Amino acid sequence: MAEIIDIDDPGDARIAAYRDVRERDLVGRQGHFVAEGEVVLRVLLTRAVHRTCSLLVTAKRFDNLGHLLALVPAAVPVYRASSAVMDAIVGFHIHRGILALGERAPMPGAAELLDQLPEEALVVVGLGIANHDNVGGIFRNAAAFGAAGVLLDGASCDPLYRKAIRVSVGASLIVPSARIGASEDVVALLERHGFLPFALSPSGATPLAQLARPARAAILLGTEGPGLPAGVMARARTVTIPMAQGFDSLNVATTSGIALYHLSQAATRIRRAGD
Amino acid sequence: MAEIIDIDDPGDARIAAYRDVRERDLVGRQGHFVAEGEVVLRVLLTRAVHRTCSLLVTAKRFDNLGHLLALVPAAVPVYRASSAVMDAIVGFHIHRGILALGERAPMPGAAELLDQLPEEALVVVGLGIANHDNVGGIFRNAAAFGAAGVLLDGASCDPLYRKAIRVSVGASLIVPSARIGASEDVVALLERHGFLPFALSPSGATPLAQLARPARAAILLGTEGPGLPAGVMARARTVTIPMAQGFDSLNVATTSGIALYHLSQAATRIRRAGD
Repeated sequence: MAEIIDIDDPGDARIAAYRDVRERDLVGRQGHFVAEGEVVLRVLLTRAVHRTCSLLVTAKRFDNLGHLLALVPAAVPVYRASSAVMDAIVGFHIHRGILALGERAPMPGAAELLDQLPEEALVVVGLGIANHDNVGGIFRNAAAFGAAGVLLDGASCDPLYRKAIRVSVGASLIVPSARIGASEDVVALLERHGFLPFALSPSGATPLAQLARPARAAILLGTEGPGLPAGVMARARTVTIPMAQGFDSLNVATTSGIALYHLSQAATRIRRAGD
Repeated sequence: MAEIIDIDDPGDARIAAYRDVRERDLVGRQGHFVAEGEVVLRVLLTRAVHRTCSLLVTAKRFDNLGHLLALVPAAVPVYRASSAVMDAIVGFHIHRGILALGERAPMPGAAELLDQLPEEALVVVGLGIANHDNVGGIFRNAAAFGAAGVLLDGASCDPLYRKAIRVSVGASLIVPSARIGASEDVVALLERHGFLPFALSPSGATPLAQLARPARAAILLGTEGPGLPAGVMARARTVTIPMAQGFDSLNVATTSGIALYHLSQAATRIRRAGD
């Protein structure tokens, strides 16, 4: 069981990492991240590759969190504060009353991640996904449909940003992810690793339902509006999700969910046929 | 072309409806709604059943909005203000620099809406969808896959709440919707109108991929966590989206997208087979 430390002074040096959470969200953190909420913290404590450094919990929530606190390693301090002190530390009201500070595990390069994947694997590639809700949603869908990894370019959000973790329901803590280097040719990289690149776009040539599932497939997603870069569209197999006349607009995270659903179903059919 | 009225005083009575937008969002509006952004306003002006009462545009955006302003009926005033005046009126910074005030068209009852639908129709039913992003996402998916309507219970959000409209990319302004009465038995109502009710749930019995598409189908969605009420689950056909071990969690809007995708694909197959 972890050590419980009561905090009465918002200025206490021991909880300095929790100070002004929103401003730190904006500038980014060196080597650390903040996660919030009971469901997400359970994922962090039980399944994530990242180390938990500490927890900060309101006294009000504390008594009902026994099952969660039992998962905290003995060396990890649990700071307990009144709601008022916690709000003063954090800089706004933390509705869920429970936060954790995590230390990022080293992030592999894109080639390194692909090298480690099994023979049959599905990955999602996000290019220019600059919205935290969308990045979080993509990771949640990747976890739900068993994708082996998510690759993001430099223009995409940090999956360990607090809101991205929350929207992903902790999935961004467990689905392996990597950054694509600025000079890296992502289509060539995928093909070199045996991944068939499927570029999702309203203007794609092949309807999603007609896609057979290869052993290794990559779902490529671009920004809403401009979409994937022309150089990627020209060299990948372009895929469309047929929509109603006059409103051909899907959110990018929803697109990832539908494409992952189809390819995971297609994989099941392949396996059944091969039995 | 609409009349352009310059506003220099945030206290001007003519723009009173735009004052303190966030607070009015929270308490709700009697008979009106506020929509924001160019894409959404284009939908409002060209496709919505709701009347546009006025626009409020920053001077900075004004010059590049000629194509949109050309759609504004002559009787609808366009108020133009500096960014500073607009922020002072609205109470925070409107990033998109363009708002409209709309007047709600009368909302039909659920039975009345179902009565009007064609012989082949897909509807989405949301019970307890209390999050504006999720309601907006459900409408966006409903529009994308040609659903004929969305029914919401009293515990679900208002689809004409500003954020729901924005997340729906205007779809909540055009997809017909109705409120289910507090005493209304939704399963009986759907069946009386010939709609086969499919209750989506992680614990559902039939995998989504095995669902054939009837002429009239309803996709029932509950809150994340508690899910659909037991009384609904007991009487509808329960449907599951198979997921990976250990992370069987999908966002409710994403669930609507996957279910709508499958049923719209299934409808295409029916029509092809019947050709």
